Amino acid sequence: MKDEANMYIPTFDDVVAAHERIKPYIHRTPVLTSSYFNDLVGAELIFKCENFQKAGAFKVRGASNAVFGLSDEQARNGVATHSSGNHALSLSFAAGRRGIPCHVVMPRTAPQAKKDAVRGYGGIITECEPSTTSREETFAKVQAETGAEFVHPYNDPRVIAGQGTCSREFMEQTGGVDIMVAPIGGGGMISGTCLTLSNIAPETKIIAAEPEQADDAYRSFNAGHIIADDAPNTVADGLKVPLKELTWHFVSNHVTDILTASEEEIIAAMKLTWQRMKIVMEASCAVPLAVILKNKEKFAGKRVGVIITGGNVDLDTLPWIK
Amino acid sequence: MKDEANMYIPTFDDVVAAHERIKPYIHRTPVLTSSYFNDLVGAELIFKCENFQKAGAFKVRGASNAVFGLSDEQARNGVATHSSGNHALSLSFAAGRRGIPCHVVMPRTAPQAKKDAVRGYGGIITECEPSTTSREETFAKVQAETGAEFVHPYNDPRVIAGQGTCSREFMEQTGGVDIMVAPIGGGGMISGTCLTLSNIAPETKIIAAEPEQADDAYRSFNAGHIIADDAPNTVADGLKVPLKELTWHFVSNHVTDILTASEEEIIAAMKLTWQRMKIVMEASCAVPLAVILKNKEKFAGKRVGVIITGGNVDLDTLPWIK
Repeated sequence: MKDEANMYIPTFDDVVAAHERIKPYIHRTPVLTSSYFNDLVGAELIFKCENFQKAGAFKVRGASNAVFGLSDEQARNGVATHSSGNHALSLSFAAGRRGIPCHVVMPRTAPQAKKDAVRGYGGIITECEPSTTSREETFAKVQAETGAEFVHPYNDPRVIAGQGTCSREFMEQTGGVDIMVAPIGGGGMISGTCLTLSNIAPETKIIAAEPEQADDAYRSFNAGHIIADDAPNTVADGLKVPLKELTWHFVSNHVTDILTASEEEIIAAMKLTWQRMKIVMEASCAVPLAVILKNKEKFAGKRVGVIITGGNVDLDTLPWIK
Repeated sequence: MKDEANMYIPTFDDVVAAHERIKPYIHRTPVLTSSYFNDLVGAELIFKCENFQKAGAFKVRGASNAVFGLSDEQARNGVATHSSGNHALSLSFAAGRRGIPCHVVMPRTAPQAKKDAVRGYGGIITECEPSTTSREETFAKVQAETGAEFVHPYNDPRVIAGQGTCSREFMEQTGGVDIMVAPIGGGGMISGTCLTLSNIAPETKIIAAEPEQADDAYRSFNAGHIIADDAPNTVADGLKVPLKELTWHFVSNHVTDILTASEEEIIAAMKLTWQRMKIVMEASCAVPLAVILKNKEKFAGKRVGVIITGGNVDLDTLPWIK
């Protein structure tokens, strides 16, 4: 990773530029409402459905911005990342659209379905052992051999500016809300949300939703500095990673509150959304609805945006079916 | 059932009137496309998503047209039907919106989830034994006691005119297709589709999709008269019922072809749609996609409409999870 890229804090101009750059490669995803959930909460909920996004998740916004923002010279050797989730899929998809290689370092223990999906988008997988040391060593080796440009899953200004296009679209589609709720893991989506809304809708409260069992952002927020968990375990597997310096910048400056939900609450909210809204979404995306259902009094009477971040679910192992 | 109502063949004027009548009570459901499925079939597929409809299925169109078309005098004693599926839900929903009772005769063996859902919309359930004799006797008794207006799930001109509004919306949204594919069970949706398209897009081919294991419409179509199965068994549980005289009229006059799919093909198409389109839909709605995937050569290069009829799925027992 280039340190100088890491230090740059993206601006709203970067979001606008990102939006122009990535428009040909992403969906302008729909917003949905549900009278059932409105009645249940006593609020007006508006769901931004990034589960319908290309490659199945909002992460294609940041990944596309990084890939298509490279000069031909920079792009020549392709891009590289370490991820076993939606960023690996999204970066492979974006690189494929540009016609450059995408190298992905993944633990050999990652589910076969995830490996197949990355390969389905053209990603080149190098397996490592399931440890931080092995991942870092393997990644350094891959980068040295290929000269590929590193695109971090979230601690990268290009990625954060790309994720910020989601809230920009949402504002165009809805005219704005009182409160915006998004899940928080590494903080890429919430940082993009902060970046956009603090510029074009500064009165909007931004609430981050986190699993109780991976509440490092909650504890960081309250402590005033980053606390990284060792190995959190939650059904919301997209939210296990810790904040990093860039995302901490946005979280500490612009997030109004962080609310948490238990595993049972997350699974119940996930199932209820499938049942009532007829959409397939990941457990990670159910965390916002879980915290809303748990804290109705904070949302009652308000217009509330909810970002549904992705829909890449293993349909063979649903968390409510034992 | 009133015989005279049964003999009336609805016209496109009835569809237009139905559309005006029910607009306040239904969603104008979105149409979705999928580049994945387009590539897979080599066609342009446009999905009309009635799984997002009020009460979770297209059947609310016909039910609402029947309920809101009643005079105050006719409506006074409410409506009644026998169904353990989406028609029971939809009629209960529509009656609730009008503020009149809805009596539903259901076998006592119907899943508790279905009974709960009907009651959730305000339906009043009378249980019968799981036999045709018991159902008919129980229904006659309920009707005699309540004086409620019978609304048949599909063999009713008001219901067929209501279902015809779906294709009318689809035409407004898309400008038309070469082929329209819809599932066939009792034939209510396909009859409404025939009624509308034969009037406003008579060049459109209409293909009905049916489970191999409940292929009474396929055999009727080839024989030239109604053949009713005794007790078909299929995962597509909305499609077990036979054609009746009114729906046979439309099927025999306007359907281009009936194609069938096996249980395995239906389940695979259902799972693939959830995976790729991130939408929850019933097995019955997967039959059109299953026949398209099985007969790609019939659809290649064409613009094809696919009606996704409903999304009321028991999430605890998915057919691909044993």
